[in-house]
Amino acid sequence: MESNDLIGLAAGTLTTVSFVPQVIKTWKSRSAKDISFGMFLLFSLGVVLWLIYGLALHSAPIILSNLVTLVLSLSIILMKLVYK
Amino acid sequence: MESNDLIGLAAGTLTTVSFVPQVIKTWKSRSAKDISFGMFLLFSLGVVLWLIYGLALHSAPIILSNLVTLVLSLSIILMKLVYK
Repeated sequence: MESNDLIGLAAGTLTTVSFVPQVIKTWKSRSAKDISFGMFLLFSLGVVLWLIYGLALHSAPIILSNLVTLVLSLSIILMKLVYK
Repeated sequence: MESNDLIGLAAGTLTTVSFVPQVIKTWKSRSAKDISFGMFLLFSLGVVLWLIYGLALHSAPIILSNLVTLVLSLSIILMKLVYK
């Protein structure tokens, strides 16, 4: 594996894992007042397109990281709808 | 431009632009209680790595989109620190 691949892998892991603390915080506090619905909606739509892009390129890292990110991002949207 | 490039471009535009409604919402409400500091910190670190990855690959779309995303993400961190 090239060093560039390692940087990309670390980058993808960080931007994907970053959603976990938000999911935990919102789940625990049951409050999502300050979270922008528009942000997570646009972000999720973008992630779906990244997923299609990854499938077109047969890129496992792009597919996997965006699949996980989509689940996390959609769960924040769901909590936003439930907790307001 | 290939159709794959167009999908990637649309994906990057959406995930970057998605931060704008959150910046506007937090700026207007002056409240960031429900926002996870950890999320935006990890996300910003990931975006810095994506930026390095883009520079290593000489990829203008990766460099540009992550530069804009970094500014937006850091401004949310700054507001989180100021408004709590």
